[in-house]
Amino acid sequence: MQSSVLRPGFVQVRVLDMEKAIAHYRDIMGLDLVGIESDGRAYLRAYDEFDRHSVVLRETDTTGLDIMAFKMVSPEALLAARKALEARDVKCEVVEAGEQPGVGERLRVYMPTGHVFDFYTQMDLSDIGPMTENPEIWREEPRGMRIVRFDHCALLGEDIDASAKLLIECFGFSIAERGLDPDGNNMAIFLSCSNKAHDVAFLKAPLEGKLHHVSFLLESWHDIGNAADLMARRDVKIDIGPTRHGITRGQTIYFFDPSGNRNETFAGGYSFYPDNPERVWTADQYPKGLFYYEREVVESFVSVFT
Amino acid sequence: MQSSVLRPGFVQVRVLDMEKAIAHYRDIMGLDLVGIESDGRAYLRAYDEFDRHSVVLRETDTTGLDIMAFKMVSPEALLAARKALEARDVKCEVVEAGEQPGVGERLRVYMPTGHVFDFYTQMDLSDIGPMTENPEIWREEPRGMRIVRFDHCALLGEDIDASAKLLIECFGFSIAERGLDPDGNNMAIFLSCSNKAHDVAFLKAPLEGKLHHVSFLLESWHDIGNAADLMARRDVKIDIGPTRHGITRGQTIYFFDPSGNRNETFAGGYSFYPDNPERVWTADQYPKGLFYYEREVVESFVSVFT
Amino acid sequence: MQSSVLRPGFVQVRVLDMEKAIAHYRDIMGLDLVGIESDGRAYLRAYDEFDRHSVVLRETDTTGLDIMAFKMVSPEALLAARKALEARDVKCEVVEAGEQPGVGERLRVYMPTGHVFDFYTQMDLSDIGPMTENPEIWREEPRGMRIVRFDHCALLGEDIDASAKLLIECFGFSIAERGLDPDGNNMAIFLSCSNKAHDVAFLKAPLEGKLHHVSFLLESWHDIGNAADLMARRDVKIDIGPTRHGITRGQTIYFFDPSGNRNETFAGGYSFYPDNPERVWTADQYPKGLFYYEREVVESFVSVFT
Amino acid sequence: MQSSVLRPGFVQVRVLDMEKAIAHYRDIMGLDLVGIESDGRAYLRAYDEFDRHSVVLRETDTTGLDIMAFKMVSPEALLAARKALEARDVKCEVVEAGEQPGVGERLRVYMPTGHVFDFYTQMDLSDIGPMTENPEIWREEPRGMRIVRFDHCALLGEDIDASAKLLIECFGFSIAERGLDPDGNNMAIFLSCSNKAHDVAFLKAPLEGKLHHVSFLLESWHDIGNAADLMARRDVKIDIGPTRHGITRGQTIYFFDPSGNRNETFAGGYSFYPDNPERVWTADQYPKGLFYYEREVVESFVSVFT
Repeated sequence: MQSSVLRPGFVQVRVLDMEKAIAHYRDIMGLDLVGIESDGRAYLRAYDEFDRHSVVLRETDTTGLDIMAFKMVSPEALLAARKALEARDVKCEVVEAGEQPGVGERLRVYMPTGHVFDFYTQMDLSDIGPMTENPEIWREEPRGMRIVRFDHCALLGEDIDASAKLLIECFGFSIAERGLDPDGNNMAIFLSCSNKAHDVAFLKAPLEGKLHHVSFLLESWHDIGNAADLMARRDVKIDIGPTRHGITRGQTIYFFDPSGNRNETFAGGYSFYPDNPERVWTADQYPKGLFYYEREVVESFVSVFT
Repeated sequence: MQSSVLRPGFVQVRVLDMEKAIAHYRDIMGLDLVGIESDGRAYLRAYDEFDRHSVVLRETDTTGLDIMAFKMVSPEALLAARKALEARDVKCEVVEAGEQPGVGERLRVYMPTGHVFDFYTQMDLSDIGPMTENPEIWREEPRGMRIVRFDHCALLGEDIDASAKLLIECFGFSIAERGLDPDGNNMAIFLSCSNKAHDVAFLKAPLEGKLHHVSFLLESWHDIGNAADLMARRDVKIDIGPTRHGITRGQTIYFFDPSGNRNETFAGGYSFYPDNPERVWTADQYPKGLFYYEREVVESFVSVFT
Repeated sequence: MQSSVLRPGFVQVRVLDMEKAIAHYRDIMGLDLVGIESDGRAYLRAYDEFDRHSVVLRETDTTGLDIMAFKMVSPEALLAARKALEARDVKCEVVEAGEQPGVGERLRVYMPTGHVFDFYTQMDLSDIGPMTENPEIWREEPRGMRIVRFDHCALLGEDIDASAKLLIECFGFSIAERGLDPDGNNMAIFLSCSNKAHDVAFLKAPLEGKLHHVSFLLESWHDIGNAADLMARRDVKIDIGPTRHGITRGQTIYFFDPSGNRNETFAGGYSFYPDNPERVWTADQYPKGLFYYEREVVESFVSVFT
Repeated sequence: MQSSVLRPGFVQVRVLDMEKAIAHYRDIMGLDLVGIESDGRAYLRAYDEFDRHSVVLRETDTTGLDIMAFKMVSPEALLAARKALEARDVKCEVVEAGEQPGVGERLRVYMPTGHVFDFYTQMDLSDIGPMTENPEIWREEPRGMRIVRFDHCALLGEDIDASAKLLIECFGFSIAERGLDPDGNNMAIFLSCSNKAHDVAFLKAPLEGKLHHVSFLLESWHDIGNAADLMARRDVKIDIGPTRHGITRGQTIYFFDPSGNRNETFAGGYSFYPDNPERVWTADQYPKGLFYYEREVVESFVSVFT
């Protein structure tokens, strides 16, 4: 089955100190600051994204994820998804156009894992997005970590099967990989709505609505190394990496923003197609699935989240 | 609109000397030889493809393209496409399951540019495809040019607008980029059915059913360099490269198989989504679109084809 | 001052099981097996080395380093070094030509840290060394980890200042970097006889003649990633990495051969010249010097040696 | 034999328009502008060089090379070289300390090929050179083409054998590679005073004192690709590349500064040691030695110089 979702479109993250957050996301990571609105939220984007923004930072006294939002192929597809959700008695609501600048009406879905997922079909194009007439490969040389785009989120919650089921049945997502516990239950589900190895992942934990990490795409292993250099030079706290995931095969660094939200730079996963057989990791090999070189799970990976 | 086509699934190419062709595609490029059937056709695949084969070589006394074939999401989607084609009086026919080993029934479409496109929904999985239970990143270390998968074809013909129109209207392809002549007519159309910058391209020329090149995906610019080293070391004739396309932003080498069919190794194009604005190249900048570093078209590029 | 030593020429290492050792150094790391002599020693070399061999494995019931050997610029330079050593009452002896196949007479020096260093000026050229008439970039595609050459050793001992002093005064080595303890004493000394950031390193420990690691040169960070993939795929035990050293700036993986001797793959350190100012790491920053991304010393790094 | 020369230390190049030259060397290539002195000369350096400057631009109405200058290991070595030159009646003169800011006395040698070579032993250290106390891998992220250092020059002249002979006999250079004409005479001589594949090259031509190119070191093939992107984006005229030399095995782009002086970005040549056998290219294979992928010499390569 094909997904009616194009891609994860934006993420809204809570930060404790906006000035430090902007220094991190703009100056070190290299995102463009689109603007700061009157309600204090800061909007950012990566150089290769057409849409107006992909990262929204909201300053408050807690950390974590406000919203993960997905752009859909068409209003018809969104309406069909809404009907499917309502048929399942999933709590939904409409967020009016303009709640974020340049973003049309969104369907807000309260996911079984406690996460807020928004689905929308319209966002203004960025003024400084990729060129379209005789396009140069980029307008200005990519800065900082040379982030290409916002890529995916990994989210923590209890009933990950239920959240995955909604994405599959109502939005056409496919399971790319699963990690199992010793009893054969899902510990981790990696879902794709595209040709990426994952667009969202759910990790089982006795928690509700928590964020494991927000991930950003880099072009290559070379850029992973460059990002690590920048993190070390600029005193960004690295959680683990550079390393490779067995799951998705992605090359990765986990690190933290100044508020403690975990970020990831990610490159090199395989091309996924919905007719691919599912990849499954048994409990004994799951650590190798998470960290292919280390083959063990760092303590912080399972204990630190926001 | 979303495409009902998953990807270019395989290509059948005519070669003059099978022994030399296998030495090229298997030993230098590094594809796996799946088998040679009793009718003499050789079947090959790249290490990261799940399906049984993606390249078919047929020895005969001409060169060029027999078939470009696409795997679709579902039999229902194939049926819908068939109806849409028939409504347009496009010549189609059914190729029975088993005409190629492991491949189900195909719908054969005679394209306005003179190319034969097959569409199918079933191919056997390879015995040596990517692992699915606690999968290693690869079974055996990728050989030769470390080709990940068959990527796309570029095809030469007269009425490229008509062929593009069929793929868009009947199969949901999107135009990623176009190159224009001085009068504003399409000289080149790059079409995507996925998140790739192109899955097939049409180049306008007073020809029918001709092949410009068959392209194979590499992982990175590093692997482009490695492929160039191998070509030079093994006396493979390079047409142009390593270089970069402005169009698709792909990093590339064009080279020739021993029969004179042009191959490409390709890496690093952008991620395409069907809501992306079209990119357009005016006639004066089209050479830069083709070859971003050279900004001029090598003579062989426009005069050599099969 | 300039060094009269060209480079570390070979290393002789003790292994517990020759068959497993060869599987590691030849099949996984990708060195060429030059031959196994009648006394059981195995001789290997990397693809880009002109000399007959650079790694000698000796099977016995202990692990560690027998000899680190250096090739000098000329017999005159060797003689001058010998006189300088004798003037300092350093224990030396002559190892006759032919003790290793293809190697001329060696001057054996018993270093204050308990290591055996051999110095020589003649080794036969390899039959399969780099080409010299219209040379291809390599004869055959580099295999395995694509090791370019044997690079350096890091050695553990008590009086590292004394060993360094001999190399500086008698052989013209330069100190590239030093790591200090809280009292300002040398904890680590990195010495160069060339344009490499280090050709040998001494690490202070209450030990005698011990080996920390034998290091091999790779071409780039890309090849470091490839080596990590191979290690993970082939169940080679990784100690730490891929990561970067602050000291030497080298990109690195530490791993173990089947006997427990630590190996390193190394790429990307800076070009050193003997007029460069010394780089010094204070005790508090020394962990960052060792592991620039992690900024802490893994336990095994200081507790495991052979 | 070992060389008494450490490295090519700086180059003084004539440019037609200083403003455009600085825009090229500083803003696009990414060198630091150390300063512009009262006589109008501009001094630049690369991020990984300890010495005050390595590139000097002089605005005048001709292009080409004023001086190629080499830093030697010691005043004693310089004196010995001077005596050797005088014994051969080579025209020399002393350039006083301070002729360039921060540079000590230089011995100026008028080479048989018409080039002016300066040899010196003292230059002030840069204030923003590599860190030495707990050194970060760089102070600020490398800009532009991420040039590591000035690497070498290739020079055109008639009696290249005589110039090479002086460098070998008086300064201890070694020949790494030679290219021959059909009669077996030297067409090109590549000389090393270090572990680089070449520190200076002479190309035979019926010319005197001409410059073929000034070359700058990049870290890897990846950075060669990045440099090509920058050149294309910023309208820098590329002569040829990205490609690889057979000679030296270096990965390369040739391009032009705004005055028409040819620059090169260079990465990845082999490590040279003076005991390496000489590599020789016969006339028929010399084009492959120059351009390993193309195997033919571009017209501009042999007809454009300054």
